[in-house]
Amino acid sequence: GMTHDGSRMDDSSRQFDILRTDGREQSSVADAVAVEEPLEIQVVSAAADAAAAKSVSITMRTPGNDEELAIGFLFTEGIITHRDQLIAATPIGRSDQATGLQNTLRVELSADVELDLARLERHFYTTSSCGVCGKASLDALQVSGQQSLAAVRTGFAPGVLLDLPGRVRDLQPVFVETGGLHAAAAFGPDGEIRIVREDVGRHNATDKVVGALLKAGETPGHGLGLIVSGRASFELLQKTLVAGIPLLAAVGAPSSLAVDTAREFGMTLVGFLRDGTFNIYAGAERIA
Amino acid sequence: GMTHDGSRMDDSSRQFDILRTDGREQSSVADAVAVEEPLEIQVVSAAADAAAAKSVSITMRTPGNDEELAIGFLFTEGIITHRDQLIAATPIGRSDQATGLQNTLRVELSADVELDLARLERHFYTTSSCGVCGKASLDALQVSGQQSLAAVRTGFAPGVLLDLPGRVRDLQPVFVETGGLHAAAAFGPDGEIRIVREDVGRHNATDKVVGALLKAGETPGHGLGLIVSGRASFELLQKTLVAGIPLLAAVGAPSSLAVDTAREFGMTLVGFLRDGTFNIYAGAERIA
Repeated sequence: GMTHDGSRMDDSSRQFDILRTDGREQSSVADAVAVEEPLEIQVVSAAADAAAAKSVSITMRTPGNDEELAIGFLFTEGIITHRDQLIAATPIGRSDQATGLQNTLRVELSADVELDLARLERHFYTTSSCGVCGKASLDALQVSGQQSLAAVRTGFAPGVLLDLPGRVRDLQPVFVETGGLHAAAAFGPDGEIRIVREDVGRHNATDKVVGALLKAGETPGHGLGLIVSGRASFELLQKTLVAGIPLLAAVGAPSSLAVDTAREFGMTLVGFLRDGTFNIYAGAERIA
Repeated sequence: GMTHDGSRMDDSSRQFDILRTDGREQSSVADAVAVEEPLEIQVVSAAADAAAAKSVSITMRTPGNDEELAIGFLFTEGIITHRDQLIAATPIGRSDQATGLQNTLRVELSADVELDLARLERHFYTTSSCGVCGKASLDALQVSGQQSLAAVRTGFAPGVLLDLPGRVRDLQPVFVETGGLHAAAAFGPDGEIRIVREDVGRHNATDKVVGALLKAGETPGHGLGLIVSGRASFELLQKTLVAGIPLLAAVGAPSSLAVDTAREFGMTLVGFLRDGTFNIYAGAERIA
C-alpha cells in the first residue's frame, strides 16, 4: 500500500495516480505499473583486471532475478557453456535516483572462457527494440536535446480513442490472416487513420509509421496521435516523442519508464484502450 | 491459396500444414504464419565510397515497408533529423534461399550527416531481444554447432498443456498486480511448474528461466518444456534450443522463422495455447 504518486511497491511494480474512463465518466484511481529499467551486463575474465570489464548488452528489463537474466543471456548467446565458468555476479555503479536500483551487473567468468571481444563487438549490434542502448536512463533523452511537447494543444475526444482499436484491426490484413502481428497507426483528432503498418515487433511497426511520416514531410507530427497494439514501453514513448507526436495510446499496459517519460516530456499516454474503457497515465488535458 | 508446406503467400505471411487439437480430436489444417526475417540496416555517406558502408542495426522484422522501417529507425535513433538527408535506399546482398528476400538495406545519407561511427559502435549494443545479431539467418544456428533435439523422447499429454496457461497465471504476482507483464515457465511432463519468471520482455523472462536452470545444473533441459506468454519468435526458439528444452508452447502465434527453427532442430512447437485448444507447428510426436 503506497500513498504518493510513482512510489515503489517493490522492485517489480510502482503505483501511479491515474484517470480511468469509459468516455462518459472519469475516476481517479491508483494503478500498479510494471517497472521497466535498463540493465547493463558486463563481463570480465578472472584472469584480468576489473578495469577490463566489457559491456556486452544493455536490455530493458523488469528488476528481479538480474543475475539469472545475465547468466541466461550469456548462456543462450553462446558466451558461456557451463555454470562452472561463472565466478561471481556483482551489482555495481551508482543507484538510479528514482528507483534506488543498481542497473549494472558485472559478471566474472573463469579464465578458460575465451572472451573474444572483437567478435563480441562485431556481433552485438542493437535491435530497433533497444531505445536506450549506450544511454543510462531517462536522463539520456534530455541530454540528447529532446524538447517537451507540453505546448502542443492537439485534443482528442474519448469516443475517437475508444473506436480506434477496432478500426485499426480492420486495416490489418496480415493480422487477420495470421492472428500474430503487431500494428502501429497514426491518426488525426477526427479519428481518421492516416497510416497503418504491421510487424512482428511493435517497435518496427512504429518505425515504419514514423519513417512514412518523415518521408512525407509530416514530422513533427504535432497534429497526430499514435496507437499501438500490445504494451507501451519506454522505447515506444521515445520514438513517439522524437516524431513530435503528442499522444500515444496502447491497447495493453504501460511500463513505469513509459509513464515517467510521458510525464517528463508533456505527452499524453493512454493504456488498456480496449473493451470500451481506457486509462490516462499522463497528459489528460488533451482528452476533451 | 498455396498448396505446399511453408510456401509464400506474399512477403508478410507463409502457409504451413499444422495440427489443431482440443486434446481429444486432432485435425490437419493449413495455417498462415507471419513472416519474421532479419533486416540489416547499413548507412553510407554520399561523400564516401560504398565500401565504407557501416552496419548500424540488425532487427527481426516482417518484410514490407523496409525503407520506411530503416528511415524511421535512423530518425528515431537520432542519426538523421530531416528527410533531405536521405539520398537513396537500396536492397543489397544475396537473396534468402527460403524467401527470395534481400535482407540488407543500404541507406545513402547526404554528406552533411555526421556519421560518428565510433559513437555508433559504442551505442549500438544488442539487446537480449536480438538473437541473430551479427548472424545472417537460420544458417548461423547450424554453423554455431547447435545439435538437433530430435532424439529427445520426452512426451507431454495434451491435457497437461491445456492446463498450463491458467496455472502459470496463478503464479505471476506482478502480472496480477499490473496486467502488463510477460511470463516464461519451465515445466515437467507431469505439468509440474518448476520455475516461473516475469519481465516486460518475453526474451528476458526466458533468459531468467534458463539462467536459473543453468545455475541449478539442470541444463540441458531434455526432460522439460517451456511456456511463454505472447508470441513465439525465432529468438525464443533459439534460447529454448540452446537450453536443450525440446518443447516450446506459446500462448500467442509463432513466426515463420520460429516454425522453421523448430522443424530444423527436431523441437516441438505449440502455438495459440488458449481457450481449450492449441496448434502444433512441429514435433507432434512428443504430444501423446
